[in-house]
Amino acid sequence: MNRLFSIASLAALAIATPVAAQESEQPEYPSPNTIVEAAPASEWVKIAPSDLLVMDLAPDTEGNSRRVVIQLMPAPFSQGWIRNIRKLAAAHWWDGTSINRVQDNYVAQWGDASEKKALPEGLETVPESEYQVDPGLVETKILLKMFETYFEWQLERTGIENTAPDVSKIPRLAIYETPYALDGDFFQNGWPVSFDETESGKWPIHCYGAVGVGRNYSPDTGSGAELYTVIGHAPRHLDRNIAVVGRIIEGIEHLSSLPRGKGQLGFYEDASKRIPINSIRLASTLPESDQPRFEYLNTEGESFAKYADARANRRDPFFIVPAGGADICNIPVPVRRVMGE
Amino acid sequence: MNRLFSIASLAALAIATPVAAQESEQPEYPSPNTIVEAAPASEWVKIAPSDLLVMDLAPDTEGNSRRVVIQLMPAPFSQGWIRNIRKLAAAHWWDGTSINRVQDNYVAQWGDASEKKALPEGLETVPESEYQVDPGLVETKILLKMFETYFEWQLERTGIENTAPDVSKIPRLAIYETPYALDGDFFQNGWPVSFDETESGKWPIHCYGAVGVGRNYSPDTGSGAELYTVIGHAPRHLDRNIAVVGRIIEGIEHLSSLPRGKGQLGFYEDASKRIPINSIRLASTLPESDQPRFEYLNTEGESFAKYADARANRRDPFFIVPAGGADICNIPVPVRRVMGE
Repeated sequence: MNRLFSIASLAALAIATPVAAQESEQPEYPSPNTIVEAAPASEWVKIAPSDLLVMDLAPDTEGNSRRVVIQLMPAPFSQGWIRNIRKLAAAHWWDGTSINRVQDNYVAQWGDASEKKALPEGLETVPESEYQVDPGLVETKILLKMFETYFEWQLERTGIENTAPDVSKIPRLAIYETPYALDGDFFQNGWPVSFDETESGKWPIHCYGAVGVGRNYSPDTGSGAELYTVIGHAPRHLDRNIAVVGRIIEGIEHLSSLPRGKGQLGFYEDASKRIPINSIRLASTLPESDQPRFEYLNTEGESFAKYADARANRRDPFFIVPAGGADICNIPVPVRRVMGE
Repeated sequence: MNRLFSIASLAALAIATPVAAQESEQPEYPSPNTIVEAAPASEWVKIAPSDLLVMDLAPDTEGNSRRVVIQLMPAPFSQGWIRNIRKLAAAHWWDGTSINRVQDNYVAQWGDASEKKALPEGLETVPESEYQVDPGLVETKILLKMFETYFEWQLERTGIENTAPDVSKIPRLAIYETPYALDGDFFQNGWPVSFDETESGKWPIHCYGAVGVGRNYSPDTGSGAELYTVIGHAPRHLDRNIAVVGRIIEGIEHLSSLPRGKGQLGFYEDASKRIPINSIRLASTLPESDQPRFEYLNTEGESFAKYADARANRRDPFFIVPAGGADICNIPVPVRRVMGE
C-alpha cells in the first residue's frame, strides 16, 4: 500500500540526535501527538475513579515515590476477575506483597511471593469461557458490515496505482488486519479488541502495558490476586489464554525499568530483590485530594481516526516513507491526566 | 484460522504463579524452546567474531560488569553504515561516550552527548536509497513463487472447516502477513525482512532488540556514531525511515532496565544520569580468550520451521487456544552462546 503514499520528505523528531534542527514552517501533515493535542474536549472521555487501581510501591533507593495507575477494563470483558480484584483491593490484600518477577521483553508480575496468604472470602472462580465474549447477533452484524466496508475500501485503494486514496472515505472505525484473529482487530470504547465471527467472539488484546491475571494450568484461570503487565513486544499468543483485566495508564516505567530477575521466567531468586508493594487501592477509596483523574480519547471520534491514520502513515517531519498500515498495538490509545473537579 | 485448531487443553509455564504444578507426562506438542533445544548441530550457524560488536558499559552501582553484544547485519543490508561502524569501533571512538536516552516502550540510545567529538576520517555518507535493497529479478521471482504457494496453502487451510491442516504442507519458508509491507514479512539468513514487489524492495525490520542509526532530518541518514536499540513494542513505522544495522543478542537487559530519561524523548536531562560506555569493539579485535562466540538457528532449516509454527500455534502445556498465526517480531530468531574453538 505504501506506493500510494509517495510523499516527499516533510518535517518531527523520532530517533534524532539531541540537537536535531527544528523545521520552522508549519508541517502539511500534523504528527499523531499534535492531532491528539488539538482534539476538542468533547472527544475526551472521563475515567471513573472506581475504574482506577492505584499501586504504590516502596520508594526507590533515592527515596522517590513510585505510583502505578491501572485502568480496569469496562464491561463486557473480564468482569468476573475484575470483581475479584475490587474485593482484593477493598481487603487491602496486596499491602505488603511484592513485585516478584521481571522477565525481559515479556512481563513484570506481582502478588504474594509466599503463596500462603489467605485470599478474602467470596472470590469467584471464573471459567475459561470468560476469556472471550459473544458479541450477540446485532453487534456481529454491525461488525461484519464494518469489516466489509473496510475491505472494499482497501481493495479500491490498493487497486488504483499512483493515486492518493480519498482519506475522507476511511471508515471511522478502522479495522486492523492481524494474524491473531480471523476478522481483525479494532478499537471499542477505548480498548483494542479482536473479532472472529466464526468463533462468535471478541476478546481483549495483550498490548504493551496490558494487565492480566496469572494462573496455573488449565482449567484454573487465576483469581486476580496474581497480576502481571506486558513490558515488551505484544505477546498476543496469550490472548484468550489469560484474562486481560486492564492496562497501565501511568507509571509503567516503575515496572519496566526494574532489574530483570535471574531465576527461571525472570523470578527474583534472591528475595531481597523483590520490590515491596505498600498498597493497592481503588482510586475511589482514596482521599479526594489523592484521587488521580484521567481521561482517554474517544476511539469512535474523529480525532482518534485521524490519530490512528497518522500513526499508520507517518508523514510528519523526520519520516520519509509512510508505512501504509499499523498493527493495533502500535496505536496506543491516548490517555491524559486531568485536574480534579 | 483459530477454528482449525480446537485442541483440548494441554500442559508449560507462561504466566504461571511461582509454584505451578509440573505436568509429568510427555506433552504431545513440544514447546518452542524444546524444539530449539532439540535442533541438530547442523542447523546452527556460527556468527563470525568480526560481525559482533561488544559494548562494555561502566559497572553498575553494585560493581557488576555490563556487557552488551550486538550482531551486525549481513549483506546486502545497511552495509554503508556498517562499514562506518567498523571504523568507529577501530578508532575506539565510542570509548568515553554514554547512553544518553532511554524512552519507555521505544528506544535506548547512545553516542557522544557533547556532540563535539570529531568523527574519524573516511566515514561514508550513505544515501536514503540504502534503506531498502532491490532483490533482483531472480530473487523476486523466487519470493513471489513462495508467497503464491503460501497463500494457496492458507486458502486451502482456511477453506476447510473443522479439519486440522496438514502441517507437513506448510511451506518451509513461511510468510507473515503484515500491515507494513504489501507482500509480507519473512526470514532470510537469520533476519526478519519485509518484501514488497511493487516497491522492488526488501528491507530489515525494527523488532525488539534491533539496533539502528540515529539521524537528523532527511536527507541526513546518520553516520552510525549515534545508535539506538528497540526496548518496546516493535516500532515498525521506522522501517525504511532509519537504517537497521544489527540486533542485540546478549545483555539487552543492561539497556532495557535503565531508568527512563525525564527529558523530552527520554533524554537524560541530568548529565550525571548518563551511563558511561567504557568501550565498543569488534569482537575479532579482542584478545582470543575474551571473544564471545554465538550461533543462530538457521531460519531456512526444519527446526526453525517447527519452532515458528509452535510460536504461532502454542499447543504446549498451559495454552488453551493456539493463536493460528504470529507477527514476525513475535518469533525471535534463536541465538545461543557457544564455547570457543
